[in-house]
Amino acid sequence: MIDNVIHDVKEPYLLTPGPLTTSHATKAAMMRDWGSWDEDFNQVTASIRAQLLAMAEAPSDEYACVPMQGSGTFAVESALACATDPNDKVLVLMNGAYGKRAAQLLDMMGRRYVTLDKGDYLPPQPKEVAALLRQDSEITTVFLVHCETSSGILNPLESIAEVVRAHGKTLIVDAMSSFGGVPISVVQTPIDVLISSANKCIEGVPGFGFVIIRQTLLAAGKGRAHSLSLDLHAQWDYMERTGQWRFTPPTHSVVAFQAALAQHREEGGVAGRCARYTRNRDALVKGMQALGFSTLLDDEWLSPIITTFLSPSDPAFEFGVFYATLKARGFLIYPGKLTEVESFRIGCIGQLGITVIAQLLSAIQEALTEMGVSLLANLSAHSGSA
Amino acid sequence: MIDNVIHDVKEPYLLTPGPLTTSHATKAAMMRDWGSWDEDFNQVTASIRAQLLAMAEAPSDEYACVPMQGSGTFAVESALACATDPNDKVLVLMNGAYGKRAAQLLDMMGRRYVTLDKGDYLPPQPKEVAALLRQDSEITTVFLVHCETSSGILNPLESIAEVVRAHGKTLIVDAMSSFGGVPISVVQTPIDVLISSANKCIEGVPGFGFVIIRQTLLAAGKGRAHSLSLDLHAQWDYMERTGQWRFTPPTHSVVAFQAALAQHREEGGVAGRCARYTRNRDALVKGMQALGFSTLLDDEWLSPIITTFLSPSDPAFEFGVFYATLKARGFLIYPGKLTEVESFRIGCIGQLGITVIAQLLSAIQEALTEMGVSLLANLSAHSGSA
Repeated sequence: MIDNVIHDVKEPYLLTPGPLTTSHATKAAMMRDWGSWDEDFNQVTASIRAQLLAMAEAPSDEYACVPMQGSGTFAVESALACATDPNDKVLVLMNGAYGKRAAQLLDMMGRRYVTLDKGDYLPPQPKEVAALLRQDSEITTVFLVHCETSSGILNPLESIAEVVRAHGKTLIVDAMSSFGGVPISVVQTPIDVLISSANKCIEGVPGFGFVIIRQTLLAAGKGRAHSLSLDLHAQWDYMERTGQWRFTPPTHSVVAFQAALAQHREEGGVAGRCARYTRNRDALVKGMQALGFSTLLDDEWLSPIITTFLSPSDPAFEFGVFYATLKARGFLIYPGKLTEVESFRIGCIGQLGITVIAQLLSAIQEALTEMGVSLLANLSAHSGSA
Repeated sequence: MIDNVIHDVKEPYLLTPGPLTTSHATKAAMMRDWGSWDEDFNQVTASIRAQLLAMAEAPSDEYACVPMQGSGTFAVESALACATDPNDKVLVLMNGAYGKRAAQLLDMMGRRYVTLDKGDYLPPQPKEVAALLRQDSEITTVFLVHCETSSGILNPLESIAEVVRAHGKTLIVDAMSSFGGVPISVVQTPIDVLISSANKCIEGVPGFGFVIIRQTLLAAGKGRAHSLSLDLHAQWDYMERTGQWRFTPPTHSVVAFQAALAQHREEGGVAGRCARYTRNRDALVKGMQALGFSTLLDDEWLSPIITTFLSPSDPAFEFGVFYATLKARGFLIYPGKLTEVESFRIGCIGQLGITVIAQLLSAIQEALTEMGVSLLANLSAHSGSA
């Protein structure tokens, strides 16, 4: 059904990790203005917070959901400031830009941390985490990016969470681009803090992020923030007392998110959405491999969120031209973010299905023909390594 | 023309200092999705930044415009962090909530400051500022809220700016609720830093604020920020290098703002908008006085943004009932924020004109009749003090 929507070619599909293509109904929810202090809007806020807790399977007497204005990084910054203090020592599991950014945030806040840096795309292994926790008893907290969109890898959250629990440490998960699209239960998988944003798998528009946090950690964070605006505890406290956001909320993004949540439910919740994204990813990877492209990652590490493809070795391939050619056909893809190899990324999330993926694959084939790129070399390399 | 728009009573007019009633065209701009890293969106960002500099009459070789995700307070926090350092000493001119918030921000950042606290609504006087600057030569910077919406007062920006310039100090102006609706020229009125937001007099939707800042101050702010997300210099630097926002922007709010800027221009820019808001304010104040209400402030201090009215002394008047009765008739007014007297506020900004004000006045009259409130006492008090 999603594929049958008439789509104006002037508005390209966003094949990215977000902001992404949202539904008409989600955008249409923004066609009215709301008083940000009025009870009608407060009810929207309360409803969203409750629905997010339920989506994470977080008991409302143990966890709180606190939205935060700004991009996802604003929410990560507010969560780290609240959930760690200068006596803590954080183990940051890094394999891409977002793990690095967490380390940068901790640096800036004067928190102690160590890193396990796996480079561009290798997954942190539970046994490596266990070894580090045994070695360094000062570590209090582990930070993991669930889906690292730098490479598109889905890191092994469940097995790492088990190790963290076994050592009695706190686990903070940046689930920015996975929550809502990949099942996560903060009780089945022991997670203390989970951070995500409006404009990812729940398919809202950008404007705010949110933190699902164990209430004991939230309470301990009172007065700890380095920033007035990004004080997660103060935001929560004000919301609990008044029903309102502490400072002006992005009202239109908030009501769009409420509409997006209703559609998420209608699609069968996280399971339904995960199934569609997985179909998109499978159709994309199969079609790209048939064209001669190779994925950066082995199949077992591919997320249903975004996939990194290696750029063809043919010198006729130029990413700028490839991007512009696809854009002219109504598709925006995403540049690569690897330090060592040339690559590009294609997202599988947003309001699109396998018909759009098929159209995209045709457009890619046309673009390659126009550029005169031969993928035979890639094809044989791919067959060789398969 | 604005008054002729068909208005669904389910969507009330927002008679507030913002978020406010925006036009259909502004909201309709949000009916598409944008790639936040794509050149098309970068052009929107560049255009907005240039238009805001022009609106402030800020030469582009001396000033920069830096947007910042989040509410207005996020922009104020990022501006104060960038434009002051621990050796500075800030004189905060306070007569309401937003002056107090600036002091709170400076406190939190470990900046030195002194205050001139005029209480709930009295304006800081240029001669008082001059005396303080003479007394305390350590003061480097003065912070002024232009329109303090706590009371609705329009503080004497021009004459204070002259004093600050005469003493060779830096002036930071929180013009959150005045910029775009009240003429401000950062060259005619010497201002070093001016802060405002998307959802005030330019009539966009909430999601970001912006800082117009002297480039020398911006350069000095490099590496000074206490927050990664709110690092104004880093945001500027990234934008200059890539054309993109450093972290995900509220894309839909940004394109709505571009549409709002076009309408602002069509209305005759700041002068045209100021004229409409002033007509709204004059019609409101005149009508309310005819009903027996008194304004908190003398006429000379009334802003064209929002007006504070004293609550009637009749015990039959209850703000909650008054608010709900007006809401049922399609008007959301704003509670008071004074510490000493009972009051409420009515905004004059947003997509509304004197026909809406006349409808509001009728609704207020009906509400008073329903509640059985007599304003005779107020009427005579008003005549007495006039």
